[in-house]
Amino acid sequence: MKRTALQRKLNIIIFGHDTPSGKTFDLVLIWLIVISVLLVMLETVSWIEQEWGEWLIMIEWGFTVVFTLEYLVRIYVTERRWAYIRSFYGIVDLLSILPTYLGLFFTDARYLLIVRVLRVLRVFRVLKLVQYMSEANILVRSMKMSRRKIFVFFSTVLVLSTIFGSLMYIVEGPEHGFTSIPKSIYWTIVTITTVGYGDITPHTVMGQFIASAAMLTGYSIIAVPTGILTAELASEMQKERTQIVCPNCHHAGHESDAFHCKHCGSDLGRRS
Amino acid sequence: MKRTALQRKLNIIIFGHDTPSGKTFDLVLIWLIVISVLLVMLETVSWIEQEWGEWLIMIEWGFTVVFTLEYLVRIYVTERRWAYIRSFYGIVDLLSILPTYLGLFFTDARYLLIVRVLRVLRVFRVLKLVQYMSEANILVRSMKMSRRKIFVFFSTVLVLSTIFGSLMYIVEGPEHGFTSIPKSIYWTIVTITTVGYGDITPHTVMGQFIASAAMLTGYSIIAVPTGILTAELASEMQKERTQIVCPNCHHAGHESDAFHCKHCGSDLGRRS
Amino acid sequence: MKRTALQRKLNIIIFGHDTPSGKTFDLVLIWLIVISVLLVMLETVSWIEQEWGEWLIMIEWGFTVVFTLEYLVRIYVTERRWAYIRSFYGIVDLLSILPTYLGLFFTDARYLLIVRVLRVLRVFRVLKLVQYMSEANILVRSMKMSRRKIFVFFSTVLVLSTIFGSLMYIVEGPEHGFTSIPKSIYWTIVTITTVGYGDITPHTVMGQFIASAAMLTGYSIIAVPTGILTAELASEMQKERTQIVCPNCHHAGHESDAFHCKHCGSDLGRRS
Amino acid sequence: MKRTALQRKLNIIIFGHDTPSGKTFDLVLIWLIVISVLLVMLETVSWIEQEWGEWLIMIEWGFTVVFTLEYLVRIYVTERRWAYIRSFYGIVDLLSILPTYLGLFFTDARYLLIVRVLRVLRVFRVLKLVQYMSEANILVRSMKMSRRKIFVFFSTVLVLSTIFGSLMYIVEGPEHGFTSIPKSIYWTIVTITTVGYGDITPHTVMGQFIASAAMLTGYSIIAVPTGILTAELASEMQKERTQIVCPNCHHAGHESDAFHCKHCGSDLGRRS
Repeated sequence: MKRTALQRKLNIIIFGHDTPSGKTFDLVLIWLIVISVLLVMLETVSWIEQEWGEWLIMIEWGFTVVFTLEYLVRIYVTERRWAYIRSFYGIVDLLSILPTYLGLFFTDARYLLIVRVLRVLRVFRVLKLVQYMSEANILVRSMKMSRRKIFVFFSTVLVLSTIFGSLMYIVEGPEHGFTSIPKSIYWTIVTITTVGYGDITPHTVMGQFIASAAMLTGYSIIAVPTGILTAELASEMQKERTQIVCPNCHHAGHESDAFHCKHCGSDLGRRS
Repeated sequence: MKRTALQRKLNIIIFGHDTPSGKTFDLVLIWLIVISVLLVMLETVSWIEQEWGEWLIMIEWGFTVVFTLEYLVRIYVTERRWAYIRSFYGIVDLLSILPTYLGLFFTDARYLLIVRVLRVLRVFRVLKLVQYMSEANILVRSMKMSRRKIFVFFSTVLVLSTIFGSLMYIVEGPEHGFTSIPKSIYWTIVTITTVGYGDITPHTVMGQFIASAAMLTGYSIIAVPTGILTAELASEMQKERTQIVCPNCHHAGHESDAFHCKHCGSDLGRRS
Repeated sequence: MKRTALQRKLNIIIFGHDTPSGKTFDLVLIWLIVISVLLVMLETVSWIEQEWGEWLIMIEWGFTVVFTLEYLVRIYVTERRWAYIRSFYGIVDLLSILPTYLGLFFTDARYLLIVRVLRVLRVFRVLKLVQYMSEANILVRSMKMSRRKIFVFFSTVLVLSTIFGSLMYIVEGPEHGFTSIPKSIYWTIVTITTVGYGDITPHTVMGQFIASAAMLTGYSIIAVPTGILTAELASEMQKERTQIVCPNCHHAGHESDAFHCKHCGSDLGRRS
Repeated sequence: MKRTALQRKLNIIIFGHDTPSGKTFDLVLIWLIVISVLLVMLETVSWIEQEWGEWLIMIEWGFTVVFTLEYLVRIYVTERRWAYIRSFYGIVDLLSILPTYLGLFFTDARYLLIVRVLRVLRVFRVLKLVQYMSEANILVRSMKMSRRKIFVFFSTVLVLSTIFGSLMYIVEGPEHGFTSIPKSIYWTIVTITTVGYGDITPHTVMGQFIASAAMLTGYSIIAVPTGILTAELASEMQKERTQIVCPNCHHAGHESDAFHCKHCGSDLGRRS
């Protein structure tokens, strides 16, 4: 497929982020997304809905038209159409315009509500900007590096919650709000994560004793994810800092006390 | 005792984790355990119990028969029978089938439930053997290394809770829910761990002042277990990384992606 | 503008912090500020207001006169008047005396109160200059270094809150307290930060499940700011320590108690 | 003052911790303390008091006689009597026996209660053991090293609480439970430390917005004490590990990559 000059030009503006016009486009878009998400939220506040309801619907249609145009232009200018349409952001882009159109067919208040609220998913599009920041990259890389430790950690938390939850179900019983094991597990998670709503609380001495044990457990295992991520982040940040590149094989990531490239062995020219 | 070929073959499948059949067995077992634990939980939800109660009992018997067979086969194929039966997982395996049989004689099902939930502990047996082993090892080793620091920390927390609890009992008194020192200590643990149910709260100015002090104390000592574990984890992870020593100059501390010694430049003999 | 000897002398006392008289002035000032802020607070307690109201007003006027004099003297003795008046602390100094005078004309005391409480900000001026400076500097520098990571982190938290809040609004609905998306987002922040007031709680099974997911999410991402700051702080503190370089072999990284280079043994010239 | 053989012998048992008899004495004492503290707690539980009250008083007198004897013997055997009596543990030892005797004179239930509960201070004596553990030493040293950073941190938390508390007092007002600034500050501390009782909660949209800001602030500054302590602990633990002592000047604390003593410059004999 031969691409026209217009397509190429628009492609740089819409998908690029390095040119001034590309940056302006990104900035305008992100503000439109944030405002449209705020509007969806305000629509659910009853007194705003009653007083400004018609205006909000009109503005919503405005946004939908703009986002629809943007979606169509994106498809028009991109080189690999299906790749875009099936990508994460392609689907989010479609999901952010679909609900308004669906609202024309579903008029049952309950379904309409869900459809309308789904527009809040647009907020995911803001994340697009995040990927261009190296800070986010370090965070994401650290989390990826420690994902297996985190998995082991969460398995332990879930097993602990199951045991504590079942214990509390037996000790406290339905008369104190622990009506079933799943509900007791909900209570255990509320307790172990130190959220502590207080909608269900232990009333027996034994229950309060077990609850205290669960809290202290939660209080100490809160240390585990922090420890994992901190250790990983510290080593990632150190690597970032020591971006010494080998003059021979261009291998980067040497430590600050290295004289020789650890990959090809040639001198880094750093001997003082 | 001479072992038959069947015993040896089954032993590899049931206790081994490296062969394809051993892995499949583990995977099937873990799903059976998870589903059976979920069933025990659902049994406690009253409307599910009422509607599907008979089905759940039948499925439960199915699981019990399967787990009983598994337990007997395990005893049959293992070389050291008593060692298995008296081991932690051997006892858990027995405890996970016993309640259903006991349920025929004892009808107070409530206390038997908790024992059945213990099945979930068997998840650890399968988990620990798969690919997550080294990650779990680092975590467990770090916790073992810091267990005495953690003990000192918990002693301090308990002493603090006793002091704060007694103070609040005097200041607030039974009329504001602090009916006894043990209950006040329960409140102090709820507060220091930042759980904060709100089932008991200070009402006097003095009580709110002491509570604020307790919260700020809890807020700062939350740092201690995190600090201990992070420091230990960081050094464990570093150790993991620095097991590579240069055969020429004996300089240690090479990163896992190094082929050449960063000090003298000689080959580390690690090229894959 | 020619400055008199009096101006220079007062300048050292009021703006300086190294001379004995300057230190005494700082100490007296910090106590006056703390006491005056405490008074403003006590004024809002109804029974104190009723019993001691007139005394409090008189003392308040005393403080206002003292702070007004201080403000005028500061303007009088400083070399660059406009720079001081327009500086952050210059404005805080003015704001801390204005409300009492404005109180003569405006009688709604409630809104003036907050401005008077701002006096507490002046504590920072004195604090930052005394002996705690280098400690505060490390903290502030670490936070500045990690401000972009913190920004990425907060964006993620806000996006997550929006998604979780909207979900809960659909699942729980107005009949369980989730009356609008903004209120649901407030609930999500209360949950994710593990505060957990319990003024709004999920009542449906689905809602409790989503809430549990939100809690566990919050519980793990609590690790992120801690990890970021710890890694940054550790490297800042290490930098502080490793500013000493050997004059002979240029080996850096000596500890603060080192007299000899640990690499070549030559004197570091740091013996006190 | 000439000390008898008995005094010297008892001194080793009572104040020493290295001989078998000294260790046995410590162990017996610590159990007596823990049991006596538990008794004080149980006394405050009304149904236990009613049923076993007379027994508890008798046992309490038994403990008091034992502790009184121990206190007198301590004074008798120690070399420097006043130094012991005025020391922290000397005062705790006295405070742990005084209340029972005072109970003979004060019969007014309210004062008697306070006097009785004061016996719980005995728990401090358990801390004695802690000081002999090197783990506790590292913790205490790390906290001492970072005490100035912690002070700066707490000043900031208090100033923030004052500002947020005053804001909420104005925004929410007495009609929503924020009856005075001190109470609002109590609420702010409950919120910032993520305790979240829910006894006072914001009801206006503006108040919920400010509360969310306070929570997110608290959520991020929870990182600060953790970061400070972790960084300090990590460096303390590293020092502990590298206990290489100079053969010439006996200076310890060399790092693992040191060839020369950093104090006197002599060779450590560690060149490989």
